[in-house]
Amino acid sequence: MADPLPSWHDGKVKAAIVDFVSRVSGSGADRVPESERIATFDNDGTLWCEQPMQVQAFFLIDRVRELAAADPALARRQPFKALLEGDRARLHAIGKQGILELFFATHAGKTLREFAAIARAWQASARHPQLGGRFVDLVYQPQLELLDYLRANAFRCFIVTGGGIDFVRAFSEARYGIPPEQVIGSSARTRVDISARGLGLFKLPELGSFNDREAKVENIGLHIGQRPILAFGNSDGDLAMLRFVAAGAGPRLALLIHHDDAGREFAYDREFALSPLAEALDKAGDYGITLVSMKDDWARIFPQRD
Amino acid sequence: MADPLPSWHDGKVKAAIVDFVSRVSGSGADRVPESERIATFDNDGTLWCEQPMQVQAFFLIDRVRELAAADPALARRQPFKALLEGDRARLHAIGKQGILELFFATHAGKTLREFAAIARAWQASARHPQLGGRFVDLVYQPQLELLDYLRANAFRCFIVTGGGIDFVRAFSEARYGIPPEQVIGSSARTRVDISARGLGLFKLPELGSFNDREAKVENIGLHIGQRPILAFGNSDGDLAMLRFVAAGAGPRLALLIHHDDAGREFAYDREFALSPLAEALDKAGDYGITLVSMKDDWARIFPQRD
Repeated sequence: MADPLPSWHDGKVKAAIVDFVSRVSGSGADRVPESERIATFDNDGTLWCEQPMQVQAFFLIDRVRELAAADPALARRQPFKALLEGDRARLHAIGKQGILELFFATHAGKTLREFAAIARAWQASARHPQLGGRFVDLVYQPQLELLDYLRANAFRCFIVTGGGIDFVRAFSEARYGIPPEQVIGSSARTRVDISARGLGLFKLPELGSFNDREAKVENIGLHIGQRPILAFGNSDGDLAMLRFVAAGAGPRLALLIHHDDAGREFAYDREFALSPLAEALDKAGDYGITLVSMKDDWARIFPQRD
Repeated sequence: MADPLPSWHDGKVKAAIVDFVSRVSGSGADRVPESERIATFDNDGTLWCEQPMQVQAFFLIDRVRELAAADPALARRQPFKALLEGDRARLHAIGKQGILELFFATHAGKTLREFAAIARAWQASARHPQLGGRFVDLVYQPQLELLDYLRANAFRCFIVTGGGIDFVRAFSEARYGIPPEQVIGSSARTRVDISARGLGLFKLPELGSFNDREAKVENIGLHIGQRPILAFGNSDGDLAMLRFVAAGAGPRLALLIHHDDAGREFAYDREFALSPLAEALDKAGDYGITLVSMKDDWARIFPQRD
């Protein structure tokens, strides 16, 4: 049989993944019914690149730039001014939830469909400032293979992201083969309204759910309704989800990617203010979480470019 | 080709369904990409029987009876007293949301898994007081065929119910072939907690979302992220969802079942206090909603019993 994970180096981690998938889909005592083969993946830093800041923050800055072109007063108001000036320190001070709130504020009044069109247009061209290539091409090849491998073994794979749910839904099917309803994320409230455009669902500027830390587990309960048997994350924001999965009865696999590859991608953990990896790194062993080294476990980082 | 809908009488409604499915899955101008073939179904009164009251209310009464056996003081307190005495008028006065809140209150502290076990044990034996047979056998055969027919044409079918999300998830896969993550419903808030049982997700007594009327559309946005192209309901609680679907661009089908079959099931609409059908019945034509007559359009109501 062909290797299902050619971009993973042979080693303990790859062996653990193959062993786990074989056991839960085999006919032995560890078999898990297909209906319970649920896998959840964080997105930023787990399925695609999140340095020097989350892709969504680049999107927000470009959107604010567009809005400021139509309304120059906006460019003089904080926090928009800081965003437009690329003030990284201020952006970090705003934090992940603050960026999300700005993001929701700048898209209030759009329908889901209108927002998807805006997000897709941006995603189709926006490029990474250092690595070259479009953000949507900076998805991790080993993870694409893992998603395919899991699906070939009857898993349903979900994204559980701190990012905006509709922003990720705009590309998840095309890039990961994950349909919109299998994306769980931070969300704005919405309101049904009748307008000249017909009966529509409009985004409100208010935060509905900030899908980080414990909220990831609560939203898994709401959207999926059962405990996943595999989870993959990369930061302390994923720790509750990883622990929830690892603590379940029966075979479980919780994986944590460590960005330790300055040569091919980035090396960071504790110092990344927007989404640090500290407690999860220190406690992985205690909680039964398998550490994955980008440097040692991944033979290739990004897909072959055309 | 064999008739995919043998329990539907030939007529305008069946022809409209077959025509719609053929067009959206064909190769003509009305083709809808598979990724957008989303169908949403109400549950109570649309997929299974909801008379003389919603199945979940019977479940609640039985649960309160069990709880009162352990704590007799409960049986003397309202509204539990009224529930145990089968006081229908009082139950109607409590209303659908009130019943839900009681339902959540009586299951606070359970994990999702514990609750699922309780619900499944009840569902495995609880019987309808008049029709005979278990509630889970009182699902509508024509709808089971419609779900299969849609899935055979690459639709993903969702339940969008005012009932408790976890109560419906406990039987949706076995009875409808709809997995838990494709059930959207009313929900209690939950909390992640570490206990002697490990890291778990526990139900709280607080209402998270009452999935009725406009909230059905908002929750479709949250859980599915795109506008369905087919929806099926039976009450005013489904009207916003039906209108949302009917108002979309391109081919759409919104269906409303009218319970007008006192002989084989029940005949009711405006007077059913827990979930009336009035405005939707009056305005179906204006809103492009197709009325389905249980009496005239369904050749069979319930599945053949073994």
